[in-house]
Amino acid sequence: MGVSLKDVALRAGVSIKTVSNVVNDYPHVTPAMRARVQQAIDELGYRPNLTARHLRKGRTGIIALAVPELGNPYFAELASAVIDAAARHHYTVLLDHTAGMREKEMLVCQGFRTHVIDGLILSPIELENHDLRGRTDTAPLVLLGEREYDAPYDHIAIDNVAAARSAVRHLAGMGRQRIAFLGARAESARQPAHLRLQGWREELAAAGLPHDDSLVAPTDGYGRADGAQAMAALLDRGVRPDAVFAYNDLQAIGAMRVLGERGLHVPRDVAVVGFDDIEEGRFGAVTLTTISPDKQAIARQAVGCVISRLTGSADAEPRRLRPGHDLVVRESTLGRHR
Amino acid sequence: MGVSLKDVALRAGVSIKTVSNVVNDYPHVTPAMRARVQQAIDELGYRPNLTARHLRKGRTGIIALAVPELGNPYFAELASAVIDAAARHHYTVLLDHTAGMREKEMLVCQGFRTHVIDGLILSPIELENHDLRGRTDTAPLVLLGEREYDAPYDHIAIDNVAAARSAVRHLAGMGRQRIAFLGARAESARQPAHLRLQGWREELAAAGLPHDDSLVAPTDGYGRADGAQAMAALLDRGVRPDAVFAYNDLQAIGAMRVLGERGLHVPRDVAVVGFDDIEEGRFGAVTLTTISPDKQAIARQAVGCVISRLTGSADAEPRRLRPGHDLVVRESTLGRHR
Repeated sequence: MGVSLKDVALRAGVSIKTVSNVVNDYPHVTPAMRARVQQAIDELGYRPNLTARHLRKGRTGIIALAVPELGNPYFAELASAVIDAAARHHYTVLLDHTAGMREKEMLVCQGFRTHVIDGLILSPIELENHDLRGRTDTAPLVLLGEREYDAPYDHIAIDNVAAARSAVRHLAGMGRQRIAFLGARAESARQPAHLRLQGWREELAAAGLPHDDSLVAPTDGYGRADGAQAMAALLDRGVRPDAVFAYNDLQAIGAMRVLGERGLHVPRDVAVVGFDDIEEGRFGAVTLTTISPDKQAIARQAVGCVISRLTGSADAEPRRLRPGHDLVVRESTLGRHR
Repeated sequence: MGVSLKDVALRAGVSIKTVSNVVNDYPHVTPAMRARVQQAIDELGYRPNLTARHLRKGRTGIIALAVPELGNPYFAELASAVIDAAARHHYTVLLDHTAGMREKEMLVCQGFRTHVIDGLILSPIELENHDLRGRTDTAPLVLLGEREYDAPYDHIAIDNVAAARSAVRHLAGMGRQRIAFLGARAESARQPAHLRLQGWREELAAAGLPHDDSLVAPTDGYGRADGAQAMAALLDRGVRPDAVFAYNDLQAIGAMRVLGERGLHVPRDVAVVGFDDIEEGRFGAVTLTTISPDKQAIARQAVGCVISRLTGSADAEPRRLRPGHDLVVRESTLGRHR
């Protein structure tokens, strides 16, 4: 069988309690003692029984992550990053998808699996303020994404307005004058894209370009087909933009497909910028210029928030964290040969 | 508070035990009684406490799904399908990625989370026969994918040889004569692509085409960048195929990117076929011809196997299930305008 705590204690010449203190990361251990025990652990190849350790603390060692859809590579890439970040804290991740439906988001939120999870990271789309205020489950909840809530929960989101402005600034700086926004929701009541739309409006104003609402192309969803349909609808209405800023990369990729079908060249006729920096955008026939949110930071901060709430080391005040983002310029605005 | 079992029993005019039998899907209930109770359930909006139900049976209601990487859309799409299939049986899914590393696959297999999962669905890459034979954990294990094992576990995989043959047959039928295989592993010891490579060889022989090993392009991994590198290496060696059959869609997409960069037209100069039918392949500048495994069937069968092992309704013999597949023909072999 495996190496025990006792074996490590014997090798290091310390008490089992001391080994336990080191393994459990308790603070009252001197650096020298920690090093001595760690050496014995390394020599013997001891692997702490993490399950037992979590159970002793009354925890399961599982964090749930609920995203709208795994089929969207942004969320799959984010989920990979969360799984890795959680593993560094000896947590595993229970992954769920909500299909962006309010009922499913509420169900996840209300803690229908409280007996197996220690905390929840949720990227909501339809969830409303009063849904959150009615939450009775006590497991730490961390919110991701651009929806804003007036509720006492940690919330992690990049600065969507600034990110959208940098995308539009890039297009305006290249002399584009008719910059479409693709991916606003048709109904105005729930507008998950509102911050990016706001950034588009603000930057057009800053660039001295009129913002023409006929250049806003609504979509029902967030996928490639939605982007393709919205682009086709815009062109069919006789609107002819010289640039497109899409809500996300998937929609931008769908739009580029339609532009190609209509004989319009990207970027000569229409420059395109997406949002998310999914790997797919780096390998198309025309690589995609995009806003790249720092997914590693989002994942690290989300897991960090859950764990600091669990260990009580966090302030009572809910936190608003702003991971970074970059504009990554590729062929869909620059062209292949400069 | 919510509606209870007792409320349903009162409304239906039956015993609580009878309601419980219906809710738990026990067999000894007449259809008429089942309908009567179901009507009361629907009228009152009763929602059974699934957590409690699982716990009563000594289960957690959680199935783990371990895939090599979520960043690969095939696995993300498959995971979505498994989550949906599990939900239909009131199970939730704990998702993990192994990075295709043997050590991580073994860890998952050995049941390091036995206390929280009822069963495991694993898509292995590096795992060996003796790793499986040494497994002591008793939770049901279902294997997915093209690696073949001599171990007493249910295994679900499409017929990879037949699928590869249909891809090559399609290319040969269009008059292509120098059909490259992209995505074999460089080392022969572990060759996850061996069945697709075998299909390629068999069909070349059937078509009367010589199989030229210089047309096999090895890759280290399974991503877009691997496909791009392998395609570039092939061309740099002076090999000039008129068609490429790639191990998967991601590699095919990477290869198409490189063909475009080198001024080669798809499909006029080089026709391309992938494998997996990920959505991305339907939206590129040139849509991708591919083998489409029936992901819904794979997910349904995998969850079905776990559950029938749990409920003891399965035969003791391990099962070998073969979900279907199709060749989906698109622009990368047909061209845009026929």
